[in-house]
Amino acid sequence: MKQIRSVRVSDLGERAVIERIRQRSGGRERGVILGIGDDASVVRGPAKLLLTTDMLVEDCDFRKASFPPFLLGRKSLCVNLSDIAAMGGKPLHAVVGMALPGDTDQLWLDRFLAGFRAAAAEYGVALVGGDLSQAPKIMISVTVTGEAGKFVTRAGAKPGDVIYVSGTLGDAAGGLRLLESGRRPAMRGREARLFRAFLDPAPRLELGAALARRAIASAMIDISDGLAVDLTHICEESGVRAEIDLAKIPISGGLLLAVDNPLDLALNGGEDFELLFTVKKKNAAAVERLSRRFPLTAIGRIVRGKGIAAQYPDGRGRPLEAKGWEHFRP
Amino acid sequence: MKQIRSVRVSDLGERAVIERIRQRSGGRERGVILGIGDDASVVRGPAKLLLTTDMLVEDCDFRKASFPPFLLGRKSLCVNLSDIAAMGGKPLHAVVGMALPGDTDQLWLDRFLAGFRAAAAEYGVALVGGDLSQAPKIMISVTVTGEAGKFVTRAGAKPGDVIYVSGTLGDAAGGLRLLESGRRPAMRGREARLFRAFLDPAPRLELGAALARRAIASAMIDISDGLAVDLTHICEESGVRAEIDLAKIPISGGLLLAVDNPLDLALNGGEDFELLFTVKKKNAAAVERLSRRFPLTAIGRIVRGKGIAAQYPDGRGRPLEAKGWEHFRP
Repeated sequence: MKQIRSVRVSDLGERAVIERIRQRSGGRERGVILGIGDDASVVRGPAKLLLTTDMLVEDCDFRKASFPPFLLGRKSLCVNLSDIAAMGGKPLHAVVGMALPGDTDQLWLDRFLAGFRAAAAEYGVALVGGDLSQAPKIMISVTVTGEAGKFVTRAGAKPGDVIYVSGTLGDAAGGLRLLESGRRPAMRGREARLFRAFLDPAPRLELGAALARRAIASAMIDISDGLAVDLTHICEESGVRAEIDLAKIPISGGLLLAVDNPLDLALNGGEDFELLFTVKKKNAAAVERLSRRFPLTAIGRIVRGKGIAAQYPDGRGRPLEAKGWEHFRP
Repeated sequence: MKQIRSVRVSDLGERAVIERIRQRSGGRERGVILGIGDDASVVRGPAKLLLTTDMLVEDCDFRKASFPPFLLGRKSLCVNLSDIAAMGGKPLHAVVGMALPGDTDQLWLDRFLAGFRAAAAEYGVALVGGDLSQAPKIMISVTVTGEAGKFVTRAGAKPGDVIYVSGTLGDAAGGLRLLESGRRPAMRGREARLFRAFLDPAPRLELGAALARRAIASAMIDISDGLAVDLTHICEESGVRAEIDLAKIPISGGLLLAVDNPLDLALNGGEDFELLFTVKKKNAAAVERLSRRFPLTAIGRIVRGKGIAAQYPDGRGRPLEAKGWEHFRP
């Protein structure tokens, strides 16, 4: 009896794989003069060009068994788009480098590419290049270009500024915890929000652009390593100190019900991909208007000094340690 | 007795590693408005922006034991610069994604970065961003931007054009073969050229730019997968056929002495990073002038049809099969 087996990437050959990617990439949108298929692509460069790169590595950033490939394709682009959002920019182009085990199923690759393409279409990004190699674990490296008019760095926070975050924090870390405990992702029910936050994060591009356009934000970062670490980045780069009220940290009902340490995940869980930004008092009304379109929460203020002071729900103040997730933790 | 051991990347922590990279990257050159250290970098975008990305994976593209980290740093940038050269462009910026095993020696990383920095300085490239992750094998993903005025694609070859290559072919494959047989790289002696071709390839940026500037080349590609495969790319993209004279393929004396199949390596060995290009007859004098500054060899001509016909040294003509190196070979 003939055994039925799936087609593997190693059966297709590199050129066939690249041809698949090429066929599925966009046309002349986003100023693309020459797309995939030559030594380099040629695009129209904006006056202020943003560049950012992010990697996803199997068993470090995701597990193949629990991460649907379509969503992994989306996320591998969206984590980069979140960096563009944090600058207040508009994304333009993407190139993707992939190293795959030779026995990777062709269907897995097709779904990954379909997800990447879906996110690219949703956010108006043109896939213009790539590279393919072989490795024992799946590694995905995406570089994205963007266009900035006014852009917002991490270094502009000043004493007196109010600190805001978008959305709720800790959901992605909660979703990861559920997955790691062996739970299957559910896209309905009260845990859906947590799974979605980890598996299918949405970059805050509109919000970032709105905050940059009229210079509403004085400093901005996307929360990828956890609030404590990323607020520390703003404080260090701006040369200021932050005071935050932990009772004000936005935490979803789903997270409160799902884990026993929601505040810890909200402070130190990674991959929220929400925006953390500071606002001068004179821009309070502008933020107020934006808060009708986006979920925004004021969590504290910038003062002179260094470090972060946290007021705990019991009323006591303590320094907040940045113990968020990082690679190569000592 | 206290044991002396080297510092590992995992002892440093991710932020310390990124700080090392940041300190070692350039300043405001190449239109860099905001360099490493924010969510994205901001650079001045040229009117015609080139984008290319390449990956190097341990045990697929190099072995850690036999590849000096300083040279690996250089090569990880230079393979991308070769793509910019093949478009006739000028390189501008680079971002680098690295996934490293946690036990990677700090000295290894420092030497890698020193090599990357040395090549960046040599070719005028600004390192503007990066990402760091953990993986069981070293993976390096570099994306480079460039500027193109006139650029040369793979698709412009026409019947009657003469086919040229720069340098000598097969040396890198010969060097790899020596390394794989356990030989230590020697930078002197008759095999030095082979080791250098594999370990420290030089992108043909000046030649590529000269060929593009006055539209001397009608089609161009860098030879990364071997002459046969890369000439096939030009033929397919241009819709033409190539006739080459194998007796004219430039082969170094070092390669002739080192291996028993030099012609096979010259045709099908990868990573030469020489330029393969076609030239209209009216530009013969211009190429002749360039050949005083660069080692150029005419190896055949473009005709109507498809595929590649090779005239063998015995005078017989046979079709040439593109069996060059590729990832995921079936």
